[in-house]
Amino acid sequence: MNKITILIHCKDRRNIIATITNFIAEKGGNIVYIDQHVDREQNIFFMRLESEFIVDGFSTDIFKEAFETHLATKFEMKWRIYSTAIKPKMALFVSKYDHCLYDLLGRYNSGELNLEIPFIISNHNDLKPIADSFNIPFYHIPVTKDTKVEAENKQLELLEKHQINFIVLARYMQIISEKLIKKYPNKIINIHHSFLPAFVGAKPYHSAYKRGVKIIGATSHYVTEELDAGPIIDQGVARVSHTHSIEDLIAKGRDLEKIVLANAVKLHTNRKVMVFNNKTVIFS
Amino acid sequence: MNKITILIHCKDRRNIIATITNFIAEKGGNIVYIDQHVDREQNIFFMRLESEFIVDGFSTDIFKEAFETHLATKFEMKWRIYSTAIKPKMALFVSKYDHCLYDLLGRYNSGELNLEIPFIISNHNDLKPIADSFNIPFYHIPVTKDTKVEAENKQLELLEKHQINFIVLARYMQIISEKLIKKYPNKIINIHHSFLPAFVGAKPYHSAYKRGVKIIGATSHYVTEELDAGPIIDQGVARVSHTHSIEDLIAKGRDLEKIVLANAVKLHTNRKVMVFNNKTVIFS
Amino acid sequence: MNKITILIHCKDRRNIIATITNFIAEKGGNIVYIDQHVDREQNIFFMRLESEFIVDGFSTDIFKEAFETHLATKFEMKWRIYSTAIKPKMALFVSKYDHCLYDLLGRYNSGELNLEIPFIISNHNDLKPIADSFNIPFYHIPVTKDTKVEAENKQLELLEKHQINFIVLARYMQIISEKLIKKYPNKIINIHHSFLPAFVGAKPYHSAYKRGVKIIGATSHYVTEELDAGPIIDQGVARVSHTHSIEDLIAKGRDLEKIVLANAVKLHTNRKVMVFNNKTVIFS
Amino acid sequence: MNKITILIHCKDRRNIIATITNFIAEKGGNIVYIDQHVDREQNIFFMRLESEFIVDGFSTDIFKEAFETHLATKFEMKWRIYSTAIKPKMALFVSKYDHCLYDLLGRYNSGELNLEIPFIISNHNDLKPIADSFNIPFYHIPVTKDTKVEAENKQLELLEKHQINFIVLARYMQIISEKLIKKYPNKIINIHHSFLPAFVGAKPYHSAYKRGVKIIGATSHYVTEELDAGPIIDQGVARVSHTHSIEDLIAKGRDLEKIVLANAVKLHTNRKVMVFNNKTVIFS
Repeated sequence: MNKITILIHCKDRRNIIATITNFIAEKGGNIVYIDQHVDREQNIFFMRLESEFIVDGFSTDIFKEAFETHLATKFEMKWRIYSTAIKPKMALFVSKYDHCLYDLLGRYNSGELNLEIPFIISNHNDLKPIADSFNIPFYHIPVTKDTKVEAENKQLELLEKHQINFIVLARYMQIISEKLIKKYPNKIINIHHSFLPAFVGAKPYHSAYKRGVKIIGATSHYVTEELDAGPIIDQGVARVSHTHSIEDLIAKGRDLEKIVLANAVKLHTNRKVMVFNNKTVIFS
Repeated sequence: MNKITILIHCKDRRNIIATITNFIAEKGGNIVYIDQHVDREQNIFFMRLESEFIVDGFSTDIFKEAFETHLATKFEMKWRIYSTAIKPKMALFVSKYDHCLYDLLGRYNSGELNLEIPFIISNHNDLKPIADSFNIPFYHIPVTKDTKVEAENKQLELLEKHQINFIVLARYMQIISEKLIKKYPNKIINIHHSFLPAFVGAKPYHSAYKRGVKIIGATSHYVTEELDAGPIIDQGVARVSHTHSIEDLIAKGRDLEKIVLANAVKLHTNRKVMVFNNKTVIFS
Repeated sequence: MNKITILIHCKDRRNIIATITNFIAEKGGNIVYIDQHVDREQNIFFMRLESEFIVDGFSTDIFKEAFETHLATKFEMKWRIYSTAIKPKMALFVSKYDHCLYDLLGRYNSGELNLEIPFIISNHNDLKPIADSFNIPFYHIPVTKDTKVEAENKQLELLEKHQINFIVLARYMQIISEKLIKKYPNKIINIHHSFLPAFVGAKPYHSAYKRGVKIIGATSHYVTEELDAGPIIDQGVARVSHTHSIEDLIAKGRDLEKIVLANAVKLHTNRKVMVFNNKTVIFS
Repeated sequence: MNKITILIHCKDRRNIIATITNFIAEKGGNIVYIDQHVDREQNIFFMRLESEFIVDGFSTDIFKEAFETHLATKFEMKWRIYSTAIKPKMALFVSKYDHCLYDLLGRYNSGELNLEIPFIISNHNDLKPIADSFNIPFYHIPVTKDTKVEAENKQLELLEKHQINFIVLARYMQIISEKLIKKYPNKIINIHHSFLPAFVGAKPYHSAYKRGVKIIGATSHYVTEELDAGPIIDQGVARVSHTHSIEDLIAKGRDLEKIVLANAVKLHTNRKVMVFNNKTVIFS
């Protein structure tokens, strides 16, 4: 059984749904999941399909070619097609905080995540024992002002060598360069420890404490060149009160960060996220 | 422009999605919304479509006939088709509590609800002034042990005379009879003031207080013959603590009840709810 | 039975709790509620007490005098003492939106709010029928650029004449002047329709839609001279998705606004809020 | 500096607060935290205090004696006094599920938990590597119908030898015997994977799926002899929909279980929980 996931967006037009479902049926595909969204402001049509092909000798590549030639070009579609047999490869970037790392590796171990983790990169050596205990290669690539370019080249080399599909910044405390962002557009997931767009930048829990908010949050988003301004994938919140110190907010925040980042990883891996106009469409 | 909403469920089978979308395209319909769900345990396929027809002389009735003959019969579908031009008619049953009544009428007035309210029925006269201030006819039908059958007949007469499509029990404190339930299957919406299935029956806030729960809830559901056991449409929750008295729980619960009941009314009215096997599929 | 509520804040120091409780005991008071908080950063002590006095001829005024002379001066306390027998008087300012007005008046009617509403002020006449149906005097005071000062004087006159204790802006769409704010410091409650500090100012739902947030919020706060920057009393949030239009956000937001504003009114009325350093301490 | 935490409950009576604070002041204690609650139904007074003593040669044991003699006996108080210098000792019981174990050990490592973990007990050997990687002794004590009594004796021996103060069942899938419960009354914390009192007993996610609830929950509670009926410490909830399979509910539930169990452990460890009448008072 061959199963593929198709993501499409294009200008909305009459009969677009029937046209697509027809095309797939003609190619011998049985649609097992269909969801769509129309952005009425921009007049953009978004669709996600899962389709099974029981035809002998089915090839995802040949299907892609046909899709491009007979459908996508005509309707000026942006599209992606994935074979569900292939697990995406995720690189984990960490620094010194261990809570998101433990959380993701725990989920990975339990089979909750449909992906591979070829390696972990860190600018510090502190979390190596955790990587070791989960038997995942750990590369220590220190980053200083002087070695930033060199460090990034080492990162890129590893990413390419292992054919990494997307990157997760699990509280990696370094700014990602334009070069890396351009190479992995909407493929670098960050967890920001505030309810964006409130408290952009450094030390958001300190700012939240100072402002006296009654709810704190965490936000997972794709990294773009503007700091903390990329498309939001998921957000979570928790109630706080005047009794909470900054340390309490940080501790409560850790729970939010773990869950919100894990949700983003799962949505991305299951091809549930489309990005348009710096916003996400999240299919169910 | 004619616009219809189609709800279908049937046994899942190959090509069911393409078959349906094709049929609609052939009849000149442009699908503007499609969502589907498969219950893998029961192997049941559910679908909701919205389709526009710009063909001259389009008739929903003729389309229904064609749908029945050429599609539904063949695939043994259960289906419903609604013209979006026609607003459903809702009868409101209340007793002495006014919070859900105020809330629904406030939303109705602000244009938030896509429905008509031909009348309000109550077994008490207390809330008549509210009905008056919103200019909605109010029928006082007292219910005692001796007059229960007679009262119900009066209710049925009003429901039929006004061609009511569905009934909302906005804290109507009477048990609904089998006769009425059978006449309006999955068309009577109740708000129960607990997080079902916890605290079925009378005085759930008292039970919640006694058990010392840290979260209370409210549940909107379709009324079935078994008390508080019908298909759940929506639920809401709120945190409570040892500092809350039973009166506090009741006050907090009122906010939950209002929102959870209003959500159910909106979902029902927008044809977003399908029922199967005493559970709901809620389309987005 | 005489019952008073005491709110105190001062520099933290040894034995402050025992000193206060002792003083009250000496005066014949039985403390039935005590809660305290220390802001460790600023070294400020906050306390809220409820005390009953069964002594004959108890006078709140005489107690206040003794409290000031023998306790407050010595410890440089800021304090407020309220007799629980006296209900605070709230002025409601509204504009054209009715949802918060309906909500507050509904709660008022049901006995949920421990306050009096001597009148409603609006810059438009639209909501007068609602005020009428609840039998509350309604003053239409139009506000234009040219009449702003005159309108405010009329407002002040009414506020003084009725000995108003605090003002609630129930989606009153006008900027409050410095003069009024200074006259009612931390006594004007506003509901802002965003999760502050995100989306300060006008049209926050539009901004939230544009940013693509996955959670929206509402914030009740005391009005200070800086727009939407006053001490936060309560916040609420609700999940949203790409399927929600701006209108959907506005409708969902209405439910948040109602609850978050009502919470603030209840906390303020029950003397549960203390303000320090532009933040609130909210006692339970 | 000596710091103690005092927990008291007794029949409510006049001047109880002033009497207690006076007593502590007389003994040279500076109260730095005070919170109290009165159960109006049962007329029971609850209090939690933290007090610092800078007197030379302060002894918690001598203070306890004085407290008992001069205060507790007179007012028929139930009381507990803890030196904050002493970390409680927690025994972890696990089975095959690793998520709560990873979560608690991660928090333990990060310094979030104010306790010691002398050992982990499991009826299976599966989680030993995790215990090893955190350098915590792991005892494999298999439990079968025939060896139940013997296994329990081994458990008790370990608990006593290590002077364990409380036990956490981190998804330990065995019924705890009356003997153990009586030895550790309100000192055995369980995490139940449902929103109690809904779905008591085995396989709650299956029951939740079958009932079609829209919100699932988790509950941490003290173990009593009646299954899943002990005093509730904390509860958490998460929204679900018809799209979630039982496996999805289980995965979502894991996140709830981790947080709700960790909250209970922190509340218990920080002496924030009092139990009365099968309910908890949770101080802030």
